Amino acid sequence: MPLDSKTVRIAVLPDPTGSAARVAQEAGAHPVPLHDANALVWTASSPAEFPTDLPDSVRWVQLPSAGVEKWLANGIVDRQRVWTSATGAYSRPVAEHALTLMLAAARRLPDCVRATTWRKDELRASVGTLRDATVVIVGCGGIGRALIPLVGALGGQVVAVNRSGRPVPGAQRTIAAADAADVWSQGDYLVLAAPATQQTERLVGAEQLRRMRSSAWLVNVARGTLVDTDALVAALDAGEIAGAALDVTDPEPLPDGHPLWTHPRAIITPHVANPETTLRAYFHERLTHNIRRYASGEPLIGVVDLDAGY
Amino acid sequence: MPLDSKTVRIAVLPDPTGSAARVAQEAGAHPVPLHDANALVWTASSPAEFPTDLPDSVRWVQLPSAGVEKWLANGIVDRQRVWTSATGAYSRPVAEHALTLMLAAARRLPDCVRATTWRKDELRASVGTLRDATVVIVGCGGIGRALIPLVGALGGQVVAVNRSGRPVPGAQRTIAAADAADVWSQGDYLVLAAPATQQTERLVGAEQLRRMRSSAWLVNVARGTLVDTDALVAALDAGEIAGAALDVTDPEPLPDGHPLWTHPRAIITPHVANPETTLRAYFHERLTHNIRRYASGEPLIGVVDLDAGY
Repeated sequence: MPLDSKTVRIAVLPDPTGSAARVAQEAGAHPVPLHDANALVWTASSPAEFPTDLPDSVRWVQLPSAGVEKWLANGIVDRQRVWTSATGAYSRPVAEHALTLMLAAARRLPDCVRATTWRKDELRASVGTLRDATVVIVGCGGIGRALIPLVGALGGQVVAVNRSGRPVPGAQRTIAAADAADVWSQGDYLVLAAPATQQTERLVGAEQLRRMRSSAWLVNVARGTLVDTDALVAALDAGEIAGAALDVTDPEPLPDGHPLWTHPRAIITPHVANPETTLRAYFHERLTHNIRRYASGEPLIGVVDLDAGY
Repeated sequence: MPLDSKTVRIAVLPDPTGSAARVAQEAGAHPVPLHDANALVWTASSPAEFPTDLPDSVRWVQLPSAGVEKWLANGIVDRQRVWTSATGAYSRPVAEHALTLMLAAARRLPDCVRATTWRKDELRASVGTLRDATVVIVGCGGIGRALIPLVGALGGQVVAVNRSGRPVPGAQRTIAAADAADVWSQGDYLVLAAPATQQTERLVGAEQLRRMRSSAWLVNVARGTLVDTDALVAALDAGEIAGAALDVTDPEPLPDGHPLWTHPRAIITPHVANPETTLRAYFHERLTHNIRRYASGEPLIGVVDLDAGY
């Protein structure tokens, strides 16, 4: 055991099934009541029931979501202790969902699902593949990095957009967000995978949509607020882009009767990119890693940066 | 140039745009009229206009399709010369289509496409991923081998079924077709990628469907005749399997009003796994390879085996 190793006395809340507490224990932590804890793991996706008055003894809080904008907006995340989100923990299922949406677009699955007759001649000429396609990934963190090898396996190439402009391994090019005004015209698919911050709010508006190729699809697996929904509907109607595949919307839930529900070139999935069937396993994996890191004094994964806003 | 190199005098028919003739020329062949040719490349997917009386001088015929059952049924393929199909040339786009269908099934895209309201609670609990899924690939030739790394990239594993039982690289297990009676219960996805032969006709009938997991999907990117369609509809209605994603059907085209068109757990794509947008490029790639091989006396790729029937 390293000299500076700590005993992790962890409160695990609300954890109705006790499964997170078991995982914490297996990782070497001691589940304790909150007043006795130096760490807290919160297992509910909503901050509604979050304890309002954390004891000073709690030095680290692990949250279960990858995006923490709700926790920041509520003023829950403070500067008195370390907060970690689960950012990156769900990258693989979300990247798989982004791939699914691109393939569904390329292969014209919405038309196929709605068809009640053999439309081979019409569809065969317009079905595409990801081979030689250019995928622009905006916000190339964990999801983007998980998506790059999937696109590569199908013969496509990736242009990555990130804050620093530091080359992303596997991407053919990396562009800093500040220099990305021209990137909208460069992709067959524009995949949004950036966190929801003030800088990314309505990142995709009328101007960006106009710059996109008329054959391109917009894919959003990040947060609905990154897209100006009215501008998107207008761009779809005007044929400025080929289609939109959205796992997240603004407003969300997408209201009944909204034109995107029935638009022939829109695919809406109801925020299921990170499905329940694998969510717990991925979160528990992250919790295990961070408990071990906390115990041995290593840096935690996913520390929330209050100034950056994620 | 090797000593036994041959001049390839090739007839390119019907080739309305002249593009295949240009490819043949670039590969080193001399395009000539049929009566002067020692080789023939036929570019139309239908055998309808195929020359009925080939000159004896034609020693090799390259056909454009991967499956040649129509050419065998018509008695066009003879034993007097070498015939090559394009088997394997379209493996990558077809494997991509199989992946698309599996992901669409896992992610419940048909339900999402048909939804007009935010069904998050219902869908999120039932959406799956390919992580840890077992994919049984029946007929593990070019398509199967192209599919294996794609499944692997998403964290799934493959059980391969082939004629010889010789281990397929990348598959977790390989089973000889003769020993495959138990394989139907072993997959979350059963992907049919075998040629249409007497041995594979109605390979999937009521008995095989009954053995499949009730959570499993049948995916057919091979030929419709591999599946007993009436048995499939009955199995879907009885909930014996979770769903069917078919790029090929029997009968094909699937007639209007057929129950599969509107079945909530069926995905029908109208034989578009190998789309026109990339077909020509892949065929020309194969044509180039085979012309070079013929010229230098190397074995051709895709020689039709009249006894095996493909």
